[in-house]
Amino acid sequence: MKKIAILGFGIVGGGIAEVLDQNKDQIEYQLGEKVEIGYILDKLDFKGTKYESIVVKDIQTILDDPEVVLVAETMGGLHPAYEFSLAALQAGKSVVTSNKAVVAKYGSILLQTAKENNVRYLFEASVGGGIPIIRPLCDSLAGNKICSITGILNGTTNFILNEMENKGASFEAALASAQEKGYAEKDPTDDIEGYDAKRKICILAALAFGKMFPEEAVACEGITNLDLCDVNILSEIGAKIKLIGHAKQVDDHIIMYVRPCVCLMDNPLASVSGVYNGIMVEGNVLGKVMFYGKGAGRLPTASAVVSDILNILMSPCKVDSIKFEEGAVKELCQDRSGKHTFYIRMEQEPVGYSYRALSGAYLVDQISRNEIEEKWQPDAYYQVL
Amino acid sequence: MKKIAILGFGIVGGGIAEVLDQNKDQIEYQLGEKVEIGYILDKLDFKGTKYESIVVKDIQTILDDPEVVLVAETMGGLHPAYEFSLAALQAGKSVVTSNKAVVAKYGSILLQTAKENNVRYLFEASVGGGIPIIRPLCDSLAGNKICSITGILNGTTNFILNEMENKGASFEAALASAQEKGYAEKDPTDDIEGYDAKRKICILAALAFGKMFPEEAVACEGITNLDLCDVNILSEIGAKIKLIGHAKQVDDHIIMYVRPCVCLMDNPLASVSGVYNGIMVEGNVLGKVMFYGKGAGRLPTASAVVSDILNILMSPCKVDSIKFEEGAVKELCQDRSGKHTFYIRMEQEPVGYSYRALSGAYLVDQISRNEIEEKWQPDAYYQVL
Repeated sequence: MKKIAILGFGIVGGGIAEVLDQNKDQIEYQLGEKVEIGYILDKLDFKGTKYESIVVKDIQTILDDPEVVLVAETMGGLHPAYEFSLAALQAGKSVVTSNKAVVAKYGSILLQTAKENNVRYLFEASVGGGIPIIRPLCDSLAGNKICSITGILNGTTNFILNEMENKGASFEAALASAQEKGYAEKDPTDDIEGYDAKRKICILAALAFGKMFPEEAVACEGITNLDLCDVNILSEIGAKIKLIGHAKQVDDHIIMYVRPCVCLMDNPLASVSGVYNGIMVEGNVLGKVMFYGKGAGRLPTASAVVSDILNILMSPCKVDSIKFEEGAVKELCQDRSGKHTFYIRMEQEPVGYSYRALSGAYLVDQISRNEIEEKWQPDAYYQVL
Repeated sequence: MKKIAILGFGIVGGGIAEVLDQNKDQIEYQLGEKVEIGYILDKLDFKGTKYESIVVKDIQTILDDPEVVLVAETMGGLHPAYEFSLAALQAGKSVVTSNKAVVAKYGSILLQTAKENNVRYLFEASVGGGIPIIRPLCDSLAGNKICSITGILNGTTNFILNEMENKGASFEAALASAQEKGYAEKDPTDDIEGYDAKRKICILAALAFGKMFPEEAVACEGITNLDLCDVNILSEIGAKIKLIGHAKQVDDHIIMYVRPCVCLMDNPLASVSGVYNGIMVEGNVLGKVMFYGKGAGRLPTASAVVSDILNILMSPCKVDSIKFEEGAVKELCQDRSGKHTFYIRMEQEPVGYSYRALSGAYLVDQISRNEIEEKWQPDAYYQVL
């Protein structure tokens, strides 16, 4: 029997207990023994539930129990999630988490601490909910140089964009509908401003390129300024506006941003609809692969945490190939002069460029952000992927 | 330095050498040391190439060298690929392969032999080319009960179906075009009759459900009888015919087949086009995830083999969660009485059923294969996924 502890028994923490319970036969078959939740650290007491007797209030109780081999941190927020994770690793316990904020800010320290203490720190659930992406990126694509990562990393905004497109809803109406369905929080800032997607692309870029950049330094634009008319104009050619997180290595620089971009019909990301996520990874020998699934939700996310738990319990001392250090802001590139195809809505005709006219807008080839802003004052413009 | 051997230096074997060479810095960074190809076993001599000096003709030379820790089997065919793999495992060397025929027929014995000798047998490249699917299925989805696997597993047939759809080509013309482009072999039987997809769904089902069924026992229908008119009728509603490999656990039985099926527009498999593969996995807590990418090709396939090589070199003694035994034919179910939606092309109108009329065909709900065959003599019928 393997004893674990859960820090924070909210949506994901409770989901972990549910998954461990629901699939206990399967898990015992794979692992060869049972997994027992020894402790739950939470402010609430869960009186009258079967968890009542294992709720503790002091992390030290967990740290002091030598039988606890693994701690699942699902508290959310930076503090004390970071301090508790650090203490657990230092106490020789592996840590798994779904907490992307902690991974983005303290991931390199926590990985280093895990290594020094011969334990493991895994965070599959921090990106893409239940979609396997972190481990495939590290293990299955080993032997590739990752060229780029391009993904729809936030299900809430993807749902909102879908509502605008399919129902002709304004941004505000689509947001209200997402909130009604429980896909968006009361304060939707993190999602609609792109901050959630930004943390995720930072984590993916760290795994792919070995550098974790401070999230504040990454160019980020959400979907709040999106005009329904652009969605409609693009619909005519089967193209879609998606909130994209992108990271690409170019020489010594990393281009990284979160922005609404245009996916043409033949781009597999265009068919990622509703609350789903799709993450396209390009490797130098592999070509492009895409990972698709529900990017959030109690059980999918808990499922990813449980896969990390089982992975560690089966190979507690495995040396993970996950490693990255902190990246310097000067290595980040905004890609303002790179030539791409852009969707540009403006009155003027783009003289001197090869373009395709849409209703009141243009797809202009071989142009850069800088050129667009210098030459015209467009009503809207988005890069075409 | 880690010394490995390659058995069979053809398309994939040569690709492995190319990937190891092209990404040697990256690989040395991840592994902490170099990978050296110590031997190549092949009938040819590769005179005048840099490989000339390491070509051997007798497997015993490789088995006898204690420095060789891993053997990559890329010979193709069952024999002597199986015997050589077995001998290498018994000699205490881990084995990786892209050879799906060997995995489908002898996988359970080889996995058992690996376990007994404290080495590993991995075969990521046997399904989906470079797409990470085997390891995610075993590792990342651990903790899930896999409910079903549904995939476009053969790029050649998917390309042919695409040509029929986009260019209005007949099956014969589309096949000729695939052969011209190098996507289909001179003798395309394995692809167009569905045998290749059948081996792959057998392997995926073994990993998901723990039983490897003899491929001969699996219901299999290729795309040779497909009529262009069905492709065209379905096009009207944005639906597509795809060659699907499917496996699903239902009580004590496994439903498994390879057949052309209809994917409606909102099914992500519908947007898997050309030579790409898409594999949808449904887990009981995870929901649906899809893995997408190029399912074949020299470098993508070699890339998957190299990822297995690195995985083993980094953790030579890891106990893999991959395990399956041989399944009995009686556990297989043809699903002739299961109720589904079917596309049925026939003169008669489907009285007594809820249906949607297309041009000369119908989407009929809640009907089984047995009922269709008993009641009507349709010109064509395909299950809608």
